[in-house]
Formats: sequence, C-alpha cells, structure tokens
Amino acid sequence: MSVIKSIELIGSSPNGWEDAVKSAINEAKKTIRNIRRVTVDGFEVLIENDEIVSYQSKVKLYFMIER
Amino acid sequence: MSVIKSIELIGSSPNGWEDAVKSAINEAKKTIRNIRRVTVDGFEVLIENDEIVSYQSKVKLYFMIER
Amino acid sequence: MSVIKSIELIGSSPNGWEDAVKSAINEAKKTIRNIRRVTVDGFEVLIENDEIVSYQSKVKLYFMIER
Amino acid sequence: MSVIKSIELIGSSPNGWEDAVKSAINEAKKTIRNIRRVTVDGFEVLIENDEIVSYQSKVKLYFMIER
Amino acid sequence: MSVIKSIELIGSSPNGWEDAVKSAINEAKKTIRNIRRVTVDGFEVLIENDEIVSYQSKVKLYFMIER
Amino acid sequence: MSVIKSIELIGSSPNGWEDAVKSAINEAKKTIRNIRRVTVDGFEVLIENDEIVSYQSKVKLYFMIER
Amino acid sequence: MSVIKSIELIGSSPNGWEDAVKSAINEAKKTIRNIRRVTVDGFEVLIENDEIVSYQSKVKLYFMIER
Amino acid sequence: MSVIKSIELIGSSPNGWEDAVKSAINEAKKTIRNIRRVTVDGFEVLIENDEIVSYQSKVKLYFMIER
Amino acid sequence: MSVIKSIELIGSSPNGWEDAVKSAINEAKKTIRNIRRVTVDGFEVLIENDEIVSYQSKVKLYFMIER
Amino acid sequence: MSVIKSIELIGSSPNGWEDAVKSAINEAKKTIRNIRRVTVDGFEVLIENDEIVSYQSKVKLYFMIER
Amino acid sequence: MSVIKSIELIGSSPNGWEDAVKSAINEAKKTIRNIRRVTVDGFEVLIENDEIVSYQSKVKLYFMIER
Amino acid sequence: MSVIKSIELIGSSPNGWEDAVKSAINEAKKTIRNIRRVTVDGFEVLIENDEIVSYQSKVKLYFMIER
Repeated sequence: MSVIKSIELIGSSPNGWEDAVKSAINEAKKTIRNIRRVTVDGFEVLIENDEIVSYQSKVKLYFMIER
Repeated sequence: MSVIKSIELIGSSPNGWEDAVKSAINEAKKTIRNIRRVTVDGFEVLIENDEIVSYQSKVKLYFMIER
Repeated sequence: MSVIKSIELIGSSPNGWEDAVKSAINEAKKTIRNIRRVTVDGFEVLIENDEIVSYQSKVKLYFMIER
Repeated sequence: MSVIKSIELIGSSPNGWEDAVKSAINEAKKTIRNIRRVTVDGFEVLIENDEIVSYQSKVKLYFMIER
Repeated sequence: MSVIKSIELIGSSPNGWEDAVKSAINEAKKTIRNIRRVTVDGFEVLIENDEIVSYQSKVKLYFMIER
Repeated sequence: MSVIKSIELIGSSPNGWEDAVKSAINEAKKTIRNIRRVTVDGFEVLIENDEIVSYQSKVKLYFMIER
Repeated sequence: MSVIKSIELIGSSPNGWEDAVKSAINEAKKTIRNIRRVTVDGFEVLIENDEIVSYQSKVKLYFMIER
Repeated sequence: MSVIKSIELIGSSPNGWEDAVKSAINEAKKTIRNIRRVTVDGFEVLIENDEIVSYQSKVKLYFMIER
Repeated sequence: MSVIKSIELIGSSPNGWEDAVKSAINEAKKTIRNIRRVTVDGFEVLIENDEIVSYQSKVKLYFMIER
Repeated sequence: MSVIKSIELIGSSPNGWEDAVKSAINEAKKTIRNIRRVTVDGFEVLIENDEIVSYQSKVKLYFMIER
Repeated sequence: MSVIKSIELIGSSPNGWEDAVKSAINEAKKTIRNIRRVTVDGFEVLIENDEIVSYQSKVKLYFMIER
Repeated sequence: MSVIKSIELIGSSPNGWEDAVKSAINEAKKTIRNIRRVTVDGFEVLIENDEIVSYQSKVKLYFMIER
C-alpha cells in the first residue's frame, strides 16, 4: 500500500494566514506532487515600526510517495 | 447551577476557516440550543490536483444543558 | 545584548481572527514600543442567540526592552 | 466485552470545585447510567465585582454503554 | 458541505489492542453510520492475579453527520 | 472592542488550594481592576518536617484593560 | 550538592482531593524521609451506584536523597 | 484507603509491542505484587542491517502498595 | 561525531499497525541507509462501508547521515 | 501569605545559553527584586552567514511580590 | 530480552546544567549499575540575593535491570 | 514572499550540548544554505561504563528555500 511523507514549511504573506498557507503550498508544488492534506500548526505575525508586515503560517504538508 | 456540555465537530468550506467554523455551528444549531462558545483546535486544508478544495476547522462547541 | 519580553493578550473583533489580532496589537501599542513578533495561541468565537458576536484571538506579543 | 463512552461537561458551584464536579455528575445522572469514573481536566473561577461568584470544573465522565 | 462529528470510546478485548478497537467500532456501528476514521489515543492493559485480563484502546471515531 | 490581559501568579495558603487561589486574587486586586476569570494551572504542597506547611495554586488571571 | 528524587503515587480518600494527597504523603512517609514538595498531576473521582466513593489524586513527591 | 504507586519500564521483544509489554510485566512481577493496570506511553522499533530486531514498549505499571 | 536525521512517514496496511510500520520502513529503505530507530507517534484506522480497510502508523525514522 | 509572580523574557548572548539566562536576569534585576527561581522553557541559536551569532534562552522568572 | 527501568532525579551544581546532570548521575551510580541514557526534561536556576546560587537539571535515567 | 523549511537532526559531541548543536549545524551546512534559526527540542547524554561518552542535542533547523 502507499506511503505518505510529511514535511514542515513556514509560508508568509502580507495579506493573511490563508494566503501564507497558499504561499507554502505553491513553493512545495514546484518539487512535490500528490500533496493531499496540509495541517497548520502555528500562526504568527511579524511587526516593523508598529505595522504588521507579514503573516506566517507554519504548515505540515502530507503527500503520497510515488513509485 | 447550570451545566455546560461540549462536543467536537469538524466543519468544512471551500472559502476559508472562518466559513468552515460557521458551517459547523449551522449544523449544530439544528439540534442544539444555547451554544455559547466555540474554540478552534485544528486547521487543515484538503488538496486535489494541486488545488485547495476544502478548508477544515476542528471545533469544540460549548452549550448550556437545558432543563 | 538586548532582552525580549512577552505578554499575553486576548483581542476581539466582530469581523474575524486577523482583525482580533490587530485589536490586541493596537491596544498594546498605546503603552509598548518595539513589538516584533506576535504568535497566536488560541482561536475562539462567542455566540449569542445563535449568532457569532465576537471572534477572539489569544496572542503573545514579543517586544524589545528599551534601556 | 463492554464498551465505555466518555463525554465532557463543565459543572459549576458557588462553593468550590468538588461541589462543581458533583453538579456535573448530578446533571449527567438524569440521562446516563453506569458512570464509573470522572477525571477533572480544568479548574476555573469566575469573578464579578472583585468577588468569586462561581467555581467551574471541566470533567470527563466515563460510563458503560448498556446493551 | 458536510460536517464530521467525533466521539470518544474505550473498547476492550482479551486478545489485543487491534481487537479492542474493533470492539469499539462494532458497538458504535449499532447507532452510528458513516464512520470514516478512528484514531487511537491510549493503550492500556488490565491485570488480575498477575495475568493480563483485558487490552483497552481509547479511540476517537469520526463520522459524517447525515442530513 | 475590549482587550483582555492575563498574568500568572502563585498564591499560597496553609488551608488549601481554594484559599491559595483567593490569596492570589486578593493580592492582584490591589493593583488590577476588572478581573473576570481565573484558571488554575498547577497545584502543589510544600512540606517541612513531614507536615504540609503550604498549599500553592498557580493561577492565570484574565482582566479587562481599561481605557 | 544534594540530589532530589521524585516518585509517583495515587492517593485516595472518601473526603476529597486534599485528603487524598495527605493519604499519599502519609504512605510515603513510612519509608521516605525529607519530602519537600508534592505536585498534583491528576484529579479523579470513582463512582459506584451513582455515588462518589473515592477521590483520587495523582501526585509526584520530591525528596532529598540522604547520604 | 489504599495507595497506588507507578513505575516506568521499557520492555522489548522480537515479536511485537504486545509481547514487549508482557516482557516488562514479567520482569516487574519478580519483585512487585498487585499490579493492576499498565499504560503504554511509547512504541519504538530498533533496526539493524535494515531489519527490525526489537519492538520496544515504554510502559507505566500501577500497583497497590501493600501494608 | 556522527549526525542523525529524522523524517516522518505514514505507512499503511490492511493487516495491522505493525505491518503498517514495516510498510513505511520498506519504502524508506529504497532511498535511505542506516535506519536505526523508528518511533510511532500515531495510530489510525480507515473505515469504508463499516469495515476497516487500512491501518495507518505515523512513524519517525532516525538514520545516520553518511559522509 | 506571600504571592509569587512570573514573567517571561528571552535573553541572548554570543557565548552560550547559560550566559543568555544571566543576561535576562540582569535586565530583570533593574526593576524587579526578590527573584527566586528561573525556569528555562526554550533554547535557540540565531545564525547569519553560516555562523552562530546569538544564543537565546526563553526564561520564566518567579519573584516575590513585595507589600 | 532485557528490560530497562527509568527513574527521575534533579541534580544541582553551582557551575552549570551539564555539571548538575553529572551530579545526578554520580549520585545514581552509588546504587544503580548499567545506566545507558539520560534525558534532561527541565532546566532551572535558583537565585538568592540577586545571584545565581544553583543550576538544576531534572533528568530521567534509563538503566538495564540485571538478573 | 520567501518560504522557510525545517528539518530535524540530532547532533552529538563528547564536550557538551552546545558543541553537539554546532556538530549538527556543520553537517547541515554541507548541503543547506541560508540556515537562520535553530531550536533545540531535546537534550540527552549517552553513558558507557558509568562515564558520559556523548552529549546529544535534538535540533530543528530553519532555512530559506532558494529559488
């Protein structure tokens, strides 16, 4: 039967956490196929000069290992 | 004094996690009254053919037990 | 070298969790300078009469101690 | 062999946490038989006008499923 | 979109933990349809007179809410 | 909307954990208004010469920030 | 410098959790000297015929190793 | 009332985790009487030359203290 | 001195969790040498039409980095 | 009886984690008296151009509230 | 196959956490043979008159049970 | 915006945990560029013949993905 692998990424976006997750998925898709599920394990915002400059989502991506 | 009960649901939506929480609350309202508080304990996205098809929010709903 | 302090706040907003985080940051900025990073450790919604009245984000703010 | 089910309740009392646990058990006994064990997973107090008005105990009740 | 509910059970068996999980699923199937996924969150053995008399598996069952 | 702040204290009492919580609340009330909720995250007893000399309750106090 | 050892016990009492802690300490004192600190990591009640028959406190005892 | 003590062991077996638990219980029975309950808190396998050589179960044994 | 790396996989099998672990190890062996230790951090079963179709074991594999 | 308060700081140093803890304590001593105990809840290193530039220790300081 | 036992100690030293671990191991060696592995689960410093007087390392020692 | 990836390594050294972290970073630098942050999630010592032979630091390395 098939085996699933997971990796951990941190995506970021100036627009929000859902956009930051998409950023991580888009990066991952360049080298990984068959992503099935993404869990979000951490939410942060970075601040400079009293303004939010980046939303960060720590994600775990689960994908099928192809053979 | 009153007693509160909690149940765990997973709501889903193609639009985002806040919408997925509303989906779970709307389902719960069909059979439960007096929901007071909802905590979110997990955030996921499901992916098919490299596209996000569903946001999932695992929630715990707290409601007053009526007597 | 510099020292960072963290405090815990709960922000709320009728519009969503990202807005609730901004609400907490805006309150903190009245008395704290040099906020650098905010992590979100809890997400809730409060419900009255079957409607969401408030989104709540429990946040930890990290800021440089000035000397 | 027998199967055990657990549910989560929050009992409250003006007198203390042990009384709040009894309040949750008494409510549960109205509809559930064969409760065997109760674990307490959270202790809180609610405060109004600088006075404690309620002790709250978050409990998990374990009971035999009858057949 | 569909909503998933979870409940927590403890199944037991004299034969092992996998059998104890089946025991919990079989009990649940009497009243619940559309079980999709079961996670196991605790493993125990009960001992009497120095012999294992029961394996216990604490499980969480996830099932679709039908409408 | 309003913002809530939390702080962590350890109260102690020779009489028990509920009294130790009251001790922490009484200390906090000297400088903080609008305490709403107190969660208890740790219970200890200190022992000297084989006798319990102090009950300690580690609490988190949540209070409204006034503006 | 001195070394501290910890052991885990579960004390029980029909009267409450503080009494159950004392029960564990009294048992430990028969064989252990120099107990300094006891943390409580779990609170349970056992129920028979719909009545609480026992309060249980899971404790960790810290004591100086004598040389 | 009676007091329960717990100790932590790691049993191992070439045959599987249930056998590894039995190995730990059998070792414990040489010096401890009245074991009642065993929880399993960790599951590992050791590998040499690409083959599983040992299953390891980290267990906590709970037993009555005799007086 | 040598450095160990860990990766996370989810193996599956129709026969049980130990077989699911072997499935993950066999997949890993195709590209990784010197696996030493595997910890199991999650156990699940997938269900279709009221029957268990797959056991899943979430594992962490530790292996020596070769130089 | 006395009340203890805790605050969370992150100290840093180019020399190591023990030095980073001292850095946090030294900063705290400027405004806080009666620090009794410091627990370390996180260890990090920051890296620039492949070189460690800073050790960071996340600490919780416990101090007596003076009255 | 062999069985491993673990015990929990807190070692202390005026010189640092590594020395505190050695202090715990040296104490344990007086009565225990075949210690194989020590994990460190907590790091503290004790402070008197604004000076660090002791580093404390909470350790778990794993050793083979001899037969 | 940029994406960060994390991997988990265990470094070891006969000299101490800080040296073990450096050992893991040095190994990682052979194949990874742009390491920014390293968190330490576990500290162990290995013992042979009653002597510490190795300090082990379990680390998570965070690095920028280059494009």
